[in-house]
Amino acid sequence: MADLFAGVDLGGTKIAAALGTASGEVAASGVIETRGSDGAEAALKRTAELLERLAGECGAQPLAIGMGLPGLLDIAAGTALFLPNLPGHWTGVPVARILGAETGKSVYVLNDARMATMGEHTFGAARASATLLMVTIGTGIGGGLVLDGELYLGRLGATGEVGHQTILPEGPRCTCGNRGCLETLASGTALAAEGAALMGQGLAPRLKALAGDGPVTARLMGEAAGAGDTHVAAAIEKAATYLGIGIANAITVTGVERVVLTGGVATLGELLLGPIRAAIPQRVRMFPSAHIEVTCSSLGDQAGVLGAIAWAAHKHLQG
Amino acid sequence: MADLFAGVDLGGTKIAAALGTASGEVAASGVIETRGSDGAEAALKRTAELLERLAGECGAQPLAIGMGLPGLLDIAAGTALFLPNLPGHWTGVPVARILGAETGKSVYVLNDARMATMGEHTFGAARASATLLMVTIGTGIGGGLVLDGELYLGRLGATGEVGHQTILPEGPRCTCGNRGCLETLASGTALAAEGAALMGQGLAPRLKALAGDGPVTARLMGEAAGAGDTHVAAAIEKAATYLGIGIANAITVTGVERVVLTGGVATLGELLLGPIRAAIPQRVRMFPSAHIEVTCSSLGDQAGVLGAIAWAAHKHLQG
Repeated sequence: MADLFAGVDLGGTKIAAALGTASGEVAASGVIETRGSDGAEAALKRTAELLERLAGECGAQPLAIGMGLPGLLDIAAGTALFLPNLPGHWTGVPVARILGAETGKSVYVLNDARMATMGEHTFGAARASATLLMVTIGTGIGGGLVLDGELYLGRLGATGEVGHQTILPEGPRCTCGNRGCLETLASGTALAAEGAALMGQGLAPRLKALAGDGPVTARLMGEAAGAGDTHVAAAIEKAATYLGIGIANAITVTGVERVVLTGGVATLGELLLGPIRAAIPQRVRMFPSAHIEVTCSSLGDQAGVLGAIAWAAHKHLQG
Repeated sequence: MADLFAGVDLGGTKIAAALGTASGEVAASGVIETRGSDGAEAALKRTAELLERLAGECGAQPLAIGMGLPGLLDIAAGTALFLPNLPGHWTGVPVARILGAETGKSVYVLNDARMATMGEHTFGAARASATLLMVTIGTGIGGGLVLDGELYLGRLGATGEVGHQTILPEGPRCTCGNRGCLETLASGTALAAEGAALMGQGLAPRLKALAGDGPVTARLMGEAAGAGDTHVAAAIEKAATYLGIGIANAITVTGVERVVLTGGVATLGELLLGPIRAAIPQRVRMFPSAHIEVTCSSLGDQAGVLGAIAWAAHKHLQG
């Protein structure tokens, strides 16, 4: 049996984990609630228990663990620095050391969007591409960069934060503390707030029928737009246009030629891709834009866990 | 005597050239007019004559030639693709081949701002820094990136174009064809137009006294602001604030920790640096911004020619 590695994707509501091989075959997987308000140590202890259960299912232990966390980390120290969208107190928590002590394995952390970038570049549609900008559009907007055929992390692993570019200088306050970040204009949270506001104004009858008393999601907004809610369609197009500007600016600075979108908002598909693809030849002039390709991820919400498995294998083999 | 290399910096009005060593000692230098309207071939022939004259002064021929051009190139082919601010017809001109045939030397081309980045990183204040964003603010706004301690060029050498990030989506038309590029808001051209407009409205009496019937320059605007022209001071601050947003966005995406400004507008010094330095901790939140350093170039307008000498030496030694 091939060597196994563990991948963990820590999110605001759930923790997903899997054991798999370096070539991306998943042997076992599971999901638990984050319950971040119990504290970081408790969440990491329950993560260790989940990994132990998965190892039991496989009859083999993983050689190392990769873990994606939603925010700013010190990747060398394995410490969380600033996780704005996660409940509970994670600032300064030595995540790699705690999970390492609980499991007896080496733990390699990265920002969750960088893990998804690793997954997409190792196993997905953008496999082995020379450059890649990954954009994860969910509660927030994250991102990751591949340059010269390798995940580009920078000194602290803090590069690729396409969602925290300032797009409207005096725009809405962002969870990061800045104003007018792309995240405040085009994340799932921003889009759902726009949908709820339209419902409140009586401008989104189809969306109201679809959502009922439940939450407004990007997927429901896409359905409502398709069913004739023109204001909902306009809200999606506006968010996609902002995404197009943020992506065009990142291309202009870094010269990436491959863009992959993932996360809940990426389920909008062509409604999102259309305005983004239109923005690129219009906005990217000092770089030949004819060969730039923008698609949605082929891995869906598995990119993060698969990337964490790939990262664990990569770091383990590096020694 | 140490080996000599030639550096050429092609600008809209003049062509600067020098012969120097790989350690940056200049042995001879000269400047001629571009006269681009005579055609690219004529300008390159006159460049070859200038280099021959400099070699005569030194009593030694350069081993190779580096040349910076203002725009988009195919650096592997040595061809100009799109030089928006240069008079005459350069599109498709095989610059490296023509100058190589005229001189009998290998010619290595790069965008002029990337050459200045090479100069700053090899010989200037940001010598050997792990990361660098160079911003050249003159007629237009150019830029260049150093990542992992090396000039990062991408496939065509077209990365680092910080001046062509969209800052105002519906802003003024840019020479590149886009709207609202940073270049339209904070270049020397944009700043001078703002100064001339204020003079026309009678809102810049000090500037009017300083400029007389001559051109408005960034340097004169700085003097006028210092002498009490509050509207001129406000125009400079506005441009600097836009620069701060563009630089903050580039830091957020690439994680560079060193920023150097050069070009005519950089002579404004603290008037420009103040708002930029203020923008960084405000706008860059998902990256630890405490250690980011922003200064003006120590090489001034020599960064381009010195960078071209360094690039020629680098490529020659690579074989």
